[in-house]
Amino acid sequence: MRPSWVESANHPETDFPVENLPFGIYEGDGAGRIGLAIGDRILDLACCADMGLLERLPGSVVRACRRGGDLNQLAARGSAAGRQVRRRAAELLTNPEYREKLAPTMVAQKDVRMLPPFRVCDYTDFYASIHHATNVGRLFRPDNPLMPNYKYVPVGYHGRASSIVVSGETVRRPRGQLMSPEAAAPVYMPTRALDYELEMGIFVAEGNELGQPIPLERAEERMFGMCLVNDWSARDMQSWEYQPLGPFLAKSFATTVSPWVVMLDALAPFRAPAYARPEGDPAPLGYLSSEVDRERGGFDVQLEAWLWTARMRELDQPPARVSRGNLRTLYWTPAQMLTHQTSNGCNTRPGDLLATGTVSGAQADSVGCLLERTKRGAEPLELPNGERRGFLEDGDEVILRAWCEREGYSRIGFGECRGVVEAAG
Amino acid sequence: MRPSWVESANHPETDFPVENLPFGIYEGDGAGRIGLAIGDRILDLACCADMGLLERLPGSVVRACRRGGDLNQLAARGSAAGRQVRRRAAELLTNPEYREKLAPTMVAQKDVRMLPPFRVCDYTDFYASIHHATNVGRLFRPDNPLMPNYKYVPVGYHGRASSIVVSGETVRRPRGQLMSPEAAAPVYMPTRALDYELEMGIFVAEGNELGQPIPLERAEERMFGMCLVNDWSARDMQSWEYQPLGPFLAKSFATTVSPWVVMLDALAPFRAPAYARPEGDPAPLGYLSSEVDRERGGFDVQLEAWLWTARMRELDQPPARVSRGNLRTLYWTPAQMLTHQTSNGCNTRPGDLLATGTVSGAQADSVGCLLERTKRGAEPLELPNGERRGFLEDGDEVILRAWCEREGYSRIGFGECRGVVEAAG
Repeated sequence: MRPSWVESANHPETDFPVENLPFGIYEGDGAGRIGLAIGDRILDLACCADMGLLERLPGSVVRACRRGGDLNQLAARGSAAGRQVRRRAAELLTNPEYREKLAPTMVAQKDVRMLPPFRVCDYTDFYASIHHATNVGRLFRPDNPLMPNYKYVPVGYHGRASSIVVSGETVRRPRGQLMSPEAAAPVYMPTRALDYELEMGIFVAEGNELGQPIPLERAEERMFGMCLVNDWSARDMQSWEYQPLGPFLAKSFATTVSPWVVMLDALAPFRAPAYARPEGDPAPLGYLSSEVDRERGGFDVQLEAWLWTARMRELDQPPARVSRGNLRTLYWTPAQMLTHQTSNGCNTRPGDLLATGTVSGAQADSVGCLLERTKRGAEPLELPNGERRGFLEDGDEVILRAWCEREGYSRIGFGECRGVVEAAG
Repeated sequence: MRPSWVESANHPETDFPVENLPFGIYEGDGAGRIGLAIGDRILDLACCADMGLLERLPGSVVRACRRGGDLNQLAARGSAAGRQVRRRAAELLTNPEYREKLAPTMVAQKDVRMLPPFRVCDYTDFYASIHHATNVGRLFRPDNPLMPNYKYVPVGYHGRASSIVVSGETVRRPRGQLMSPEAAAPVYMPTRALDYELEMGIFVAEGNELGQPIPLERAEERMFGMCLVNDWSARDMQSWEYQPLGPFLAKSFATTVSPWVVMLDALAPFRAPAYARPEGDPAPLGYLSSEVDRERGGFDVQLEAWLWTARMRELDQPPARVSRGNLRTLYWTPAQMLTHQTSNGCNTRPGDLLATGTVSGAQADSVGCLLERTKRGAEPLELPNGERRGFLEDGDEVILRAWCEREGYSRIGFGECRGVVEAAG
């Protein structure tokens, strides 16, 4: 592709070259406006529409671009609508004749507040990393780490949609029932085992009708794009409450998403083979298996979690990397997750969020949460400045990052997903 | 209260006397209109507003009444707004001078289609019946029926909001992974263990902000009203998938709600003492315990489930009652459920649904689902016409009913929550 006239978009280290153009909602004139990230700027779609620059797009798509507020209306037009907008934006941003007209309308990302990209009504959190499931299973059930269903079922549960917040919002340490092994009764108090979970999320585009499962070959068409997700967790609340119906308040106090939604088109050069099931693992059942999905595979996305303590910030020390992983290590592909979600006829709606669950690799430093990394706090992590963490402390900021790189292609980044832990109220 | 000039509202057997006046959404002129049920008719709030009959109410409330579509906007104004509307409607419906004006605008309930009362974004299903939890626990874990957390934690999980449908919608038998004890691998096929669950639901009114738990004394103020809920369940899918993260596809294919939302005001004469915890049970933790809540207690609501098979309908036989219970048998009050839901700072939004979980009593015929009644299908239920049911068959219609009765008070009913099982697609 031609370089963009937005010079910062041509820098090899940018997350947002013209080959990316993720969608987000930013605050402008007190309202949420739809923008595309390009270098360190934002292209405003309502401005483009007002200037008549989107005239070749269908009217309903242009109206959705103008309307703003969230990406739900646009996503409801299907991933094809997002693709059309993105293609047209790439033309505008690479053709120098639009520079004079558009450049003055484009704000710097650092100058604006980002809002949640979608109004989410249903949020599902999967458990797609077999390394994570095994590590966590070992801590909760040493004799029985991996359930017999794991290699057949893309295990997941419904999360809380109302408490999804966007990167930058503080996260208040939750109170809940904690049960010490030696105690006679639980105590309602602030969690002492607050954790992050390094995940990625998929936003649904047009969804499906009740009773109409999405076949595996069509699942990716129904996805609008991907983002980073931090599924904050209170491990002590979780271990007390989770039986028999699963995690509830240990997770529902906050889930942070990154503001920029990267379309699957932008990820096309970064496909990775699906998880290589070792000899002896069963093949997926028919509805979770197709030639097309096997060929497409998953995604080669590099993932990192960084910790920036209050003391580090005070002393001007940089954040410390605490996890690094890769989305390609998941046992199930995003397409398998969406197909499984709808395989009983369950409908999905535009903006529904499917998260992968914590992405952990096989190495000690590639696990995506402190629970695993510190063995439930028993082996605290030593940070470069001498601080130690079993779990998160007040003032800690967690920063998630993700990007794709491949020789001969522009780097595609997801931006950041940040949150500072605030003391219990 | 004076009798209503809607004569059917004065019949002692009606669910909808003027003391009830539940809110619902009915289809009129191709749109969802807000109505109040009165006898066998519907009072249309937009008509009342157009006639200037709501002029003493705040403008924002009148606008919400006019707008229709769902009850979310009205609920967002708080339960007080619903109360004001309901009080004004009672004046209009008991003062004969409004008869001439209003009667022609009121349609018969039997002539219109009801729509879902709320657009639900978060749906929580609790597990508040200790009889149900014990019975089900015994089937899944004979040695360990009731988890140690049960008497401390109002256990619940997030359900699927997208597949909430209104009474009258058919329910398609879901496909899913079934694992037979003797099989080497699961099979993806239609469930053979489809069940109903007799529950009640609470719709949230104005909700709470993230990080601001709702204290127990204030929880009922945040509730808009109650309805019947059938949380359809595929038991064979459930037992295979539910570990370790809880029920997922076994529940998410459909949840049916009754169309009329009964305000807590209408239930005021039917309060019941909170569950009498037997000697030895722990007291609830402080945040789940208050003098006010103890005094208010729960609700004395009679509940029934009826089964109407295809053959019964064909032969003009009446439905058979298969469950009868009472909401007062719950271990936790609705207020305790909402307070627990928000106790970690989780926010709630107008129209969020909190369901009680299956309401089962101590007697064999007071259990609220077939799983319990038939011991997982092992002891099929004998119906009056000789048919037998371990679980539901295609063509079966499940009808839930609920009402309150007390000497000296008008009967308050919830209407019906119905659904016919349709063969897998």
